[in-house]
Amino acid sequence: MKLYSYFRSSAAFRVRIALNLKGLSYDTQAVHLLKQGGEQHSAEYVAINPSELVPTLLDQQYVLTQSLSILEYLEEAYPKTALLPQNLQQRAQIRAFAQHIACEIHPLNNLRVLQCLEQTLAVSNTEKTAWYQHWIKLGFHSLEQQLQQSNGQYCFGEQASFADCCLIPQVYNAKRFQIDLTEYPKIQSIYTHCMQLAAFHQAAPEQQADWE
Amino acid sequence: MKLYSYFRSSAAFRVRIALNLKGLSYDTQAVHLLKQGGEQHSAEYVAINPSELVPTLLDQQYVLTQSLSILEYLEEAYPKTALLPQNLQQRAQIRAFAQHIACEIHPLNNLRVLQCLEQTLAVSNTEKTAWYQHWIKLGFHSLEQQLQQSNGQYCFGEQASFADCCLIPQVYNAKRFQIDLTEYPKIQSIYTHCMQLAAFHQAAPEQQADWE
Repeated sequence: MKLYSYFRSSAAFRVRIALNLKGLSYDTQAVHLLKQGGEQHSAEYVAINPSELVPTLLDQQYVLTQSLSILEYLEEAYPKTALLPQNLQQRAQIRAFAQHIACEIHPLNNLRVLQCLEQTLAVSNTEKTAWYQHWIKLGFHSLEQQLQQSNGQYCFGEQASFADCCLIPQVYNAKRFQIDLTEYPKIQSIYTHCMQLAAFHQAAPEQQADWE
Repeated sequence: MKLYSYFRSSAAFRVRIALNLKGLSYDTQAVHLLKQGGEQHSAEYVAINPSELVPTLLDQQYVLTQSLSILEYLEEAYPKTALLPQNLQQRAQIRAFAQHIACEIHPLNNLRVLQCLEQTLAVSNTEKTAWYQHWIKLGFHSLEQQLQQSNGQYCFGEQASFADCCLIPQVYNAKRFQIDLTEYPKIQSIYTHCMQLAAFHQAAPEQQADWE
């Protein structure tokens, strides 16, 4: 497998965690989202992923895009070390949690949106940080409530799931923007626990070859 | 089943389509996103969905949130009239398309984000429309390319899938904001076709009891 990745992309970080949890080996091809106007816009990359977004995963002849779709694919193609339980209600709960991050928090704070606020709407740095923090806090408030039954190690149940694959990169980002995590004790506890595990730790931005 | 819905919510529209396609009957409970500061923030609704977002689907004792998670649940619990094919690559392609809408387009243009731009960042109406159109056009450009193999009736293959459940509400919204669809012939053709089908037509905002 080959993963087109950027060290700081939290969508790529999700997929790196899932690949590691499942023990699947892969080569990484770095796509720098800032250099030369963004390598994701290069003709070479657009030919692979016309959406001009990372990550992209190549598995045999398959070209896979969108991190949550990639997670579902990995779960179906490589069911060993399941990242979803069998119970339908629990699966729905975990997917809803993952999608809360992927649909309600991350899209508002990713690089291209922050660039648009700055460059098109001439939003100041202070306002941009306030925007970022607003969506994180609103989202984390909901996530923390969804985690009330968590054992403080993983989001749901006794092992890692799609929920942890999405939560850890989002918390990593929040820490970069100085969000006070003490208001979210379950989130903080799960983050601390998971980041000690090899699958999560080795997927982190600073462990990537393209880290700066 | 009981669906907490708002006629104009495109996330609720997705779920209404899926329920109709699968022939599942449900009661609708309207949640007005604007009246009285937004009924999704009422104590009664927050007790059901602490994320304060629509839709929520109640099925027996299950409380289901996040539209794409609800679609996955419906597919697993009620497999008749499948909305995903069996082939792993096709499933991944359809999910990536649906997530492109749910993660890259819709989150930037939903009510609470437009309200935040206006109220917090004091963005003008003209700038707000430009913001809306920017993300739609960027997203539709990618979607149109993903649809090159489409038969012009459905997004992928010979029947409706998660992709159509997500595309039709997004196009409905785009039309409200005067997006010129002639640049996206596949999208336009699929929209025209699907909106003639009862499952889609009856899920549309103007067919809802809470339509204004």
